[in-house]
Amino acid sequence: MSTDSTASTASTASGSDSTETGSTRQERFDRGLAVLSAVDGEAGQRVIDSLADVHPELAHQIVAWGFGEIYSRPGLQPRDRQLVTLGMLTALGGCEPQLEVHLNAALNVGLTPAEITEVLLHTTGYCGFPKALNATFVAKKVFGERGLLPVGSQ
Amino acid sequence: MSTDSTASTASTASGSDSTETGSTRQERFDRGLAVLSAVDGEAGQRVIDSLADVHPELAHQIVAWGFGEIYSRPGLQPRDRQLVTLGMLTALGGCEPQLEVHLNAALNVGLTPAEITEVLLHTTGYCGFPKALNATFVAKKVFGERGLLPVGSQ
Amino acid sequence: MSTDSTASTASTASGSDSTETGSTRQERFDRGLAVLSAVDGEAGQRVIDSLADVHPELAHQIVAWGFGEIYSRPGLQPRDRQLVTLGMLTALGGCEPQLEVHLNAALNVGLTPAEITEVLLHTTGYCGFPKALNATFVAKKVFGERGLLPVGSQ
Amino acid sequence: MSTDSTASTASTASGSDSTETGSTRQERFDRGLAVLSAVDGEAGQRVIDSLADVHPELAHQIVAWGFGEIYSRPGLQPRDRQLVTLGMLTALGGCEPQLEVHLNAALNVGLTPAEITEVLLHTTGYCGFPKALNATFVAKKVFGERGLLPVGSQ
Amino acid sequence: MSTDSTASTASTASGSDSTETGSTRQERFDRGLAVLSAVDGEAGQRVIDSLADVHPELAHQIVAWGFGEIYSRPGLQPRDRQLVTLGMLTALGGCEPQLEVHLNAALNVGLTPAEITEVLLHTTGYCGFPKALNATFVAKKVFGERGLLPVGSQ
Amino acid sequence: MSTDSTASTASTASGSDSTETGSTRQERFDRGLAVLSAVDGEAGQRVIDSLADVHPELAHQIVAWGFGEIYSRPGLQPRDRQLVTLGMLTALGGCEPQLEVHLNAALNVGLTPAEITEVLLHTTGYCGFPKALNATFVAKKVFGERGLLPVGSQ
Repeated sequence: MSTDSTASTASTASGSDSTETGSTRQERFDRGLAVLSAVDGEAGQRVIDSLADVHPELAHQIVAWGFGEIYSRPGLQPRDRQLVTLGMLTALGGCEPQLEVHLNAALNVGLTPAEITEVLLHTTGYCGFPKALNATFVAKKVFGERGLLPVGSQ
Repeated sequence: MSTDSTASTASTASGSDSTETGSTRQERFDRGLAVLSAVDGEAGQRVIDSLADVHPELAHQIVAWGFGEIYSRPGLQPRDRQLVTLGMLTALGGCEPQLEVHLNAALNVGLTPAEITEVLLHTTGYCGFPKALNATFVAKKVFGERGLLPVGSQ
Repeated sequence: MSTDSTASTASTASGSDSTETGSTRQERFDRGLAVLSAVDGEAGQRVIDSLADVHPELAHQIVAWGFGEIYSRPGLQPRDRQLVTLGMLTALGGCEPQLEVHLNAALNVGLTPAEITEVLLHTTGYCGFPKALNATFVAKKVFGERGLLPVGSQ
Repeated sequence: MSTDSTASTASTASGSDSTETGSTRQERFDRGLAVLSAVDGEAGQRVIDSLADVHPELAHQIVAWGFGEIYSRPGLQPRDRQLVTLGMLTALGGCEPQLEVHLNAALNVGLTPAEITEVLLHTTGYCGFPKALNATFVAKKVFGERGLLPVGSQ
Repeated sequence: MSTDSTASTASTASGSDSTETGSTRQERFDRGLAVLSAVDGEAGQRVIDSLADVHPELAHQIVAWGFGEIYSRPGLQPRDRQLVTLGMLTALGGCEPQLEVHLNAALNVGLTPAEITEVLLHTTGYCGFPKALNATFVAKKVFGERGLLPVGSQ
Repeated sequence: MSTDSTASTASTASGSDSTETGSTRQERFDRGLAVLSAVDGEAGQRVIDSLADVHPELAHQIVAWGFGEIYSRPGLQPRDRQLVTLGMLTALGGCEPQLEVHLNAALNVGLTPAEITEVLLHTTGYCGFPKALNATFVAKKVFGERGLLPVGSQ
C-alpha cells in the first residue's frame, strides 16, 4: 500500500473539518452529558454515578464518545435511534439493565407504550419469543413505574 | 390456578374479535404475500422460492405469520419496523443474508442511505465495531447494486 | 420475476388446504391454549397471565401461533421438541426464566432428570461450561421444587 | 471452606471408580474416534484432518474428550443428542460448517429429513426466522448432496 | 477416505505419547482440583460444591478436563488465560456468575484492578457498552468484597 | 438528583485534564492511524480503505476513537489487548473477517503461533468447540499466508 493511498484515505475518513478548532476532553464530556441528560434523564445519570468508584474512564467514554460524539449527530432523530436501540438490546440478550434505561429513553423521546409493545412484538420473528419476553417484562417494570399500565388504556 | 383466571386471561389474550369471520390458511398466506412483496420486493420472494424444495412450511409461516399477522399490524410504520430490524440483525450477528434482504427493504420503505449508515454508526456503541462492520459491508453490497455509492454524493 | 413463478411458489408454500374451513382468531388461541396447558402446565400459564396488563397481543401470539400452529404439529413428538428447546435456550444464554418453564415442560413430557442432566452435559462441548452451568442451576431449582434432588437417587 | 468438605466434594464429583484401571491418552483418542466415525462419518473426519497442520491438539480434544468422554456416555441416545445439537447450533448462529457436519450426523443416527425440517420450524419461535433460515439452507445443501430433495417426496 | 489417511491423522492428533502410563479418572480429577484451587480459590470450589446434588458429572468434567487437561497446559500462563477469559465472558453475555469467579481468578493470578478495568474499557469497541457495563458491575462487586475500591487509589 | 452530585460526577468522569489543550478531529484521527498501522498493519488499513465509499465516518471513529482513544492507552500492553480481543472475537461468533485482522495483529505484537493455538484451545471450555473451530480455521488461513504452518515446527 502506497503512502499516497493511505494519505488519501486518512483525508477522506477524517472528514473535511481540517480547520476545526480543537475541543478539550472536558468539552467533549460536557457536550455528551447534555445529550445524555436530555435522552436518558436520571436513569442514565445513575449508571454514570455508579461507575465513579470502579471505572470513571468508562463513564467518561460513554458520555463523551457514546453520547457526545455519536448520539448527538444530526443524521438520525432520537426517536429513530431508540427504535434501533430497542431492537439491538432485545437481540443481544442479557442487557436488561440497559433496556430499562433505554425504555425510559424511548418514552422520553416520544415513543408511546403502544408503539413500544408493537416494537417488542415485531422482535419475535427475528429474535424469538424468549428474548422478546425478557424485554417485555422490563417494559412492564418501566411502564409500571411511570403509571403507564395497563397498556392500551391510556 | 383457578379455571376462572385462566378463562379471563384467555379472553384478554385472544382479543375481542369473537365475532371475527374465520380466515383460511390460504387467505392468511395471501395477505402476508402482499405485505412481503410491498416491503421486501424480489429479495424476499427469492428467499421464499429457495425454500420450496426443502421447507415450504417454513416459507408459509414466514409469509402468513411473520408478514401477514405481525408485520401488517398498523401500530408501527414500515420505516420504524425496518429501523428495529436493522438493529436486531446487526446485533444478532451471522445474519448477513437476512440483512441483505432487509437493507433492500429499508430502502424500499423510505430510509435513505445516509440514514442507514447513521443507523450502522449508532450500532457501534451497543454491538461493537466488528458487528457494525459486518453489517456495513452488506450495506455496501446493497447500495452498490442499486447505484447508491458513494454514500453522501446523492 | 414473473407472476407465474410467484403464483406457483405461493401455491406450494401455502399448502394444499385450499378447501380448509377458516378458523377464527379465538379458535386458534383455544387450540394453542390446550397445547400450552398440556406441555407447560401452570408455569406457562403464569407467563401468559403476567403479560395481561403489558402485552396481551404477545401472549396471544405465543399461544395461538407458537403453541397452536407450530408446537401442535404432529411431525415431532413433545419429548423431541423439548430436547431441541433445551439445546436452544442453553445456547442463547440469558433465557433462564424460559428455561425454568421448559425444564418443567421437559419433565412433563417424559424426560427424566437423569436424561436432562445428560443433555446439559452434552451442551458443554457446543456452548461451553458457563452457559451449561447457568442452565444446570435452573435445573437444580426446578428439580428441587419437584422433589427430584439429588439426581441419581430416584 | 474446610478441607473435609473439599475432600467430600472431590469424592462425589470424581465418581466411584477409584478402582478404575487407568486409560492412556491414545486409548481415550481411539475410543472417541470410533464414536466420531459412527456418528459423523467422513464429514467429522474431514474436520479432524483439516486441523492436522494448525491445531492437532484441538483435534485430539474434540475426539478424545468430546466424543470419547461425553458423546459416548450411555445416558442419552445419539438421536436425542443430535436433536439437542441441532437446537444449539441453530441458536448459536454463525456455525454453519458445524451444522453441516451435524445435519449429516442427524441423518446418520436416524432422524428423517421430515423430522429435521420440523426441528427447524420449531426453532423459529425460540431463535427467530433469520437463524432458522440459515440452518435450513445448510439442510438444503446436505439433503441435496444425499439425494433427499425435495423433502416430503420420499 | 482411505484407512491410511485416517490412521495417520489419528496418530498426529493423539500425539506422541504412545508410551504414556495411563491415568485414572480420579487422578485426572485430582490434577484438575489442584489447578482449580490455585486459580479460582474458594469461588471455584463453591461452584463445584453447588453441583453435588444436581450434576456431579458436570463438576467432574469441569475440574478433570477443563482445569486438569486444558488450563494446566504449560503453553500459556494463567495471567494470559484470564485475559482471554475476561474477553470471552464479557462477549458471551449473561455469564455474570462465571465472571465473578474469573474476576477473582484474574486478581489471584496477578492482574491488578487497574489492568482489569483497562481490559473492560478495551471490550467496549468489540462488544459494545452494554456488555462492558454488565461486566464492570460484576468487577465492582468483586473489587468491593476484596477492599479494592476505589480503583486507582491503591 | 441534585445538580451538585451531577457536577461532581461529571468532574470525576471527565478526569483532571481541565487544562488540556484541545485536540482537533484530524489530530485524533492521526494519532489513531499511527496506532492502527503499528498494530494491524496493512490488514487494518484495508478495512479502513474499503469503508471509503460507504461509511467514511465509521472508518474515522474506528481509527480516531477505537485506536487513538482506547487502544493507545498505556494501561495495557498490545500483547495483552490482543489476548482479550482473540477471546472476544471467538466468543462473539460470525466475526471471522475481524479475527483475520486481529490474528495478524496478534502476531505483529509478539504472540507466537503456538501461543495463539493455545488461546484457541483455551476458548473451547468457555465458547464450545464450534466457535473455537471457526476461529482456528481463520488462524490456519493467516498462519498459512505468513508461512507459519505447520504450527509446532518452527
